[in-house]
Amino acid sequence: MHECCTPIRAAVIGASGYSGEELVRLLLHHPHADLVAVTSRSSAGQTVAQVFPRFGSHPEARSLQFVEPDVHALASRADVVFLALPHGVAAEFAVPLHAAGVTVIDLSADFRLRDPAVYQEFYAHPHPAPALLSKAVYGLPELYRDQIRTASLIASPGCYPTSILIPTLPLLRAEIIRPAGIIADSLSGVSGAGRKAEADYLFCECNESVRAYGIPKHRHLSEIEQELSLAAGERVTLQFTPHLIPVNRGILTTLYLAPTRHFSTAAEAAVLGDEIAACYRAAYEHEPFVRRLEGKALPDTKNVVGTNVVEFAWRLDPRTGRLLVVSAEDNIVKGASGQAVQSMNIRFGFPETAGLE
Amino acid sequence: MHECCTPIRAAVIGASGYSGEELVRLLLHHPHADLVAVTSRSSAGQTVAQVFPRFGSHPEARSLQFVEPDVHALASRADVVFLALPHGVAAEFAVPLHAAGVTVIDLSADFRLRDPAVYQEFYAHPHPAPALLSKAVYGLPELYRDQIRTASLIASPGCYPTSILIPTLPLLRAEIIRPAGIIADSLSGVSGAGRKAEADYLFCECNESVRAYGIPKHRHLSEIEQELSLAAGERVTLQFTPHLIPVNRGILTTLYLAPTRHFSTAAEAAVLGDEIAACYRAAYEHEPFVRRLEGKALPDTKNVVGTNVVEFAWRLDPRTGRLLVVSAEDNIVKGASGQAVQSMNIRFGFPETAGLE
Amino acid sequence: MHECCTPIRAAVIGASGYSGEELVRLLLHHPHADLVAVTSRSSAGQTVAQVFPRFGSHPEARSLQFVEPDVHALASRADVVFLALPHGVAAEFAVPLHAAGVTVIDLSADFRLRDPAVYQEFYAHPHPAPALLSKAVYGLPELYRDQIRTASLIASPGCYPTSILIPTLPLLRAEIIRPAGIIADSLSGVSGAGRKAEADYLFCECNESVRAYGIPKHRHLSEIEQELSLAAGERVTLQFTPHLIPVNRGILTTLYLAPTRHFSTAAEAAVLGDEIAACYRAAYEHEPFVRRLEGKALPDTKNVVGTNVVEFAWRLDPRTGRLLVVSAEDNIVKGASGQAVQSMNIRFGFPETAGLE
Amino acid sequence: MHECCTPIRAAVIGASGYSGEELVRLLLHHPHADLVAVTSRSSAGQTVAQVFPRFGSHPEARSLQFVEPDVHALASRADVVFLALPHGVAAEFAVPLHAAGVTVIDLSADFRLRDPAVYQEFYAHPHPAPALLSKAVYGLPELYRDQIRTASLIASPGCYPTSILIPTLPLLRAEIIRPAGIIADSLSGVSGAGRKAEADYLFCECNESVRAYGIPKHRHLSEIEQELSLAAGERVTLQFTPHLIPVNRGILTTLYLAPTRHFSTAAEAAVLGDEIAACYRAAYEHEPFVRRLEGKALPDTKNVVGTNVVEFAWRLDPRTGRLLVVSAEDNIVKGASGQAVQSMNIRFGFPETAGLE
Repeated sequence: MHECCTPIRAAVIGASGYSGEELVRLLLHHPHADLVAVTSRSSAGQTVAQVFPRFGSHPEARSLQFVEPDVHALASRADVVFLALPHGVAAEFAVPLHAAGVTVIDLSADFRLRDPAVYQEFYAHPHPAPALLSKAVYGLPELYRDQIRTASLIASPGCYPTSILIPTLPLLRAEIIRPAGIIADSLSGVSGAGRKAEADYLFCECNESVRAYGIPKHRHLSEIEQELSLAAGERVTLQFTPHLIPVNRGILTTLYLAPTRHFSTAAEAAVLGDEIAACYRAAYEHEPFVRRLEGKALPDTKNVVGTNVVEFAWRLDPRTGRLLVVSAEDNIVKGASGQAVQSMNIRFGFPETAGLE
Repeated sequence: MHECCTPIRAAVIGASGYSGEELVRLLLHHPHADLVAVTSRSSAGQTVAQVFPRFGSHPEARSLQFVEPDVHALASRADVVFLALPHGVAAEFAVPLHAAGVTVIDLSADFRLRDPAVYQEFYAHPHPAPALLSKAVYGLPELYRDQIRTASLIASPGCYPTSILIPTLPLLRAEIIRPAGIIADSLSGVSGAGRKAEADYLFCECNESVRAYGIPKHRHLSEIEQELSLAAGERVTLQFTPHLIPVNRGILTTLYLAPTRHFSTAAEAAVLGDEIAACYRAAYEHEPFVRRLEGKALPDTKNVVGTNVVEFAWRLDPRTGRLLVVSAEDNIVKGASGQAVQSMNIRFGFPETAGLE
Repeated sequence: MHECCTPIRAAVIGASGYSGEELVRLLLHHPHADLVAVTSRSSAGQTVAQVFPRFGSHPEARSLQFVEPDVHALASRADVVFLALPHGVAAEFAVPLHAAGVTVIDLSADFRLRDPAVYQEFYAHPHPAPALLSKAVYGLPELYRDQIRTASLIASPGCYPTSILIPTLPLLRAEIIRPAGIIADSLSGVSGAGRKAEADYLFCECNESVRAYGIPKHRHLSEIEQELSLAAGERVTLQFTPHLIPVNRGILTTLYLAPTRHFSTAAEAAVLGDEIAACYRAAYEHEPFVRRLEGKALPDTKNVVGTNVVEFAWRLDPRTGRLLVVSAEDNIVKGASGQAVQSMNIRFGFPETAGLE
Repeated sequence: MHECCTPIRAAVIGASGYSGEELVRLLLHHPHADLVAVTSRSSAGQTVAQVFPRFGSHPEARSLQFVEPDVHALASRADVVFLALPHGVAAEFAVPLHAAGVTVIDLSADFRLRDPAVYQEFYAHPHPAPALLSKAVYGLPELYRDQIRTASLIASPGCYPTSILIPTLPLLRAEIIRPAGIIADSLSGVSGAGRKAEADYLFCECNESVRAYGIPKHRHLSEIEQELSLAAGERVTLQFTPHLIPVNRGILTTLYLAPTRHFSTAAEAAVLGDEIAACYRAAYEHEPFVRRLEGKALPDTKNVVGTNVVEFAWRLDPRTGRLLVVSAEDNIVKGASGQAVQSMNIRFGFPETAGLE
């Protein structure tokens, strides 16, 4: 389909943040999509190249201007609209765009939760568009690829959730690990905080600094627990500790998991290890963006930054009976904009890796 | 005592690494110690100021020369000798210096373990001086202050162990937390790897990178488990995951602990919280180098770097029933050289904070 | 004097920025000064320890509260007041404090220029208190030590000027270099921009980034040219290019200078080199905070960060006939707060290095 | 040509360093080249994916193995061979490969200088293959595109030279600036030092550090002066000061130039400015990898990292009569491997931007 057809028309609303900038980068180079509109209240009137000087040699970036967001204009000009907006605001755009028949890919948290009560618990205000929740598909392609193919509203997952769900879901479904007691300890680059002019994210406040934040009840918990619970077939409560570390890009997550099968000898660990390896192979052998590390290799954010890949490695610890899994991803690519483009590719019948290699 | 008396004479063996450099800095400015000798095979013949240009304005640093290590000469010239050497090598110096009556403060792992079999298990060679193990005191002042006062051989703790033991030991002793299932997830600056010319620690390999390493059985586990077990009165097995992050200095440790008392409501958490606060207050209220954070504050390595302080904060999570504690320290100061000087102060009757403020 | 007498009382107005924080740190540990007041509109009501968690173990920091700035209260309570305020604002406080007889040490640019017309040219508004200009002493101790001893208003130099003037002034005065054609190429850490919540100084905008800014007419030019001109006895115009580099602290300045004496052979360079060395030795041999590097050593900001030292090295290039000088300092210490405390020490008869070692 | 034909076969000798890794990345994704061999003595036997985990999801990287360098085998298997080797060593491979008819693109300094005496002066040993010098083309496409089309040996320029020559050559040729007195002050990321396990380039030695090095006579001077002299039609001597700054990638160069035409008023500057703008436009309007910044924009390495673009901006300073030009590039891409691939594209008739967008 993708070689014969005219490209689809894509727009990005709220394109001046880090996720928006990455969407612009991916769409400017996408073989099957044309970036037809970018909006930003603060940048309206400027070209993409002026707002993002790194795209200054790209002809389209030099001509395409940021505009004020106008739902009617966008609805008539775009086949797909990406929302790179704060939660709460995204829904205001999603509702009319969806009604106008545009495919909406929302990078905010607004449509990730199935239950509006959970949204209210974690986001501290009523859900802005509960009627639309049933239309939304959680845009994790490795889990919901079939649903994404026909979705009209795709709720692209958060950065932390992706790094946690990919290594955990297959093990939960296969009942290799227990649903209780899961711990996710995550380290995120500063771009995860967005391009917000807040003193906490100044260079001198982040450089030569490491800190935990948002504990013990970070907002992303809600969507992670939702998907873990669906995989486990029972309610899962997660311990999740995010930390801020001085890198621009990347999330490293260390997962502490309890295998259902007891092991304390090397022989028992080997048997369980084979089971885990087989489970992961079955789940991810053909996934283009999931990389299972082998041998002594351990994940390193520098090996995934700039790519749509999430990589992970695991170790069984016979001393404690636990399974450790460490995963790494680029929080703005597989954790945000790359994954959203991956969903677009699936939704419009393009090769899933188009524009993401 | 310290105002009337002549200063003690201190020497540092293996002074050209990061811990050695920090010892030199602390001793050059110490009000009650004179730095009389520094040794380093690679730097012999150069002055301290030549090897460490940052001390170039200090008169003693401009005159004191590095020498080859000579046990006999040191034994006659120094009252206290610090060993900033690799494990295995440190013992070779500790034995004759101890026999010569010099107080030895060893920053290596050689005398931290009471049981030589555990040493062999974790360090993969027989203990080099098992007869001396019974003389050694584990140099964590907050735990072994009385023993340090009269010790002839002080085994100064590792950087990770300090960040883990300080927040854990009082809770274990008071039976507020269970000995089983403790997890310590630690993030360390690159100076923890030492001043070794290895490609893994080059700027470009560490900058914009985060990675776990040494899992699941890091060497520091042995001394941590020894001290946790002593505090708990039963054998404790720890899950410990060290990570390397792109900062020069600092360790941040996140601890996942299981309170013995069940809690799931805010009221139950408040009762337990009072108990924890009282336990920590009793343990550390008068400790000059332990900082309990209050209110919403969370540890940040930038607030302890360059100081001998370890700071921590804790949160009860009624959703999971767990207690989270986060601690921060400078891995080279409280995690190594500052703590060693603190032990020296105790051993020689100086104010414990002398030269460490 | 300083051992027998009661300490002086010091206050800091505008203490919540990076220079203010450093002043607080230096004054909390100063042997002859008591920090009696700190002001900040945004932090009023909080303790110093709450605003600056790194001082959380200092008893005074835990008790001293930030207050709203009140000139009358400060005038009666403090012997010396440091102004760590934006230019223009500083003068509003300096005038009444000076009138009340308090010694004022101003870290802003307000009283550095002798000529109010130059101030207006570079700062784009009329000088706020021209009558006070004649009372002000430019607080570079290596140049104006005698005047500082009796000054009532000390205009502490900027960070770039210190790094440029220290290596240049003795050569200009000795007519070893020509006044024309001087180039200063400076690299500054991000703390130089202050603790301002602006997007340009976010971690992700500065990390993995290097850029020039403010060219070709940076505001600091005015005070540098004033002092160069006074030293040369003629009007000096400087080429000055500041750059922002991803470090917290430090300025490195590379100076391109034209010796008056021609040299193109090694022998000629040796003769001139002796002259330069003698000139620098005469100027700085007894200066506690100026470090002349010898041999092959070149300045490195990491060797001066956290200290009040400015270090420099020089090279003659027979190929081009130029003299290169490279200097390094901590922009917040010798470039701001440390230098201000050095002036306080001189003004109040304390040892010049008190509290700065 | 490039759409119908079979791809060319490319090999990289010495592929385990940073330039080698970048060549591998570019060639793995190049539409008209197949990477058929990579050599490295230290990595022989390992796959590309094992040595460079970031390529772990690329099928060819998982199958292609590093081998020992074997000139005969390479000569028969490759159409083009890239040499990413130290100077001196590169020539040893260039001679037999060139004799065997393979196109050689050398990233070392071995064939950049026309005069073997200059080589000996700057590299301190006789040129290893002077007979081949006359065959070599200096691989700066913007300057020698026509010669590159038919070259059998391309000497790809160094990173500093590219950042200096691109903004300078057109002005010299047009006699807008004087050949005398040019100063280039450059700031380089640490990858410029290569993947060498030396203590100077450890993370803790480079982070929070800035330093000049190699002054006043850096080796790269020789090739820069050669090309400047050719453009000026007279011998040019350059003042060049390289600095090491804590970023992985990127060079920022600030150039101090003297216009031949005097200007001291805004009107005179405007006339000269038009002339400069016209000169640059004529030189670079159609160059795909040269970006002239407009308006208030100034170069920033973060806007070119990962790309083959060199960007620059200029300012006239009527106060000093100088022209300042600031340029930025990725030292490993336009400064090394990207430029080498650009030359390959030209040499083999591919679109010049193939594989570089």
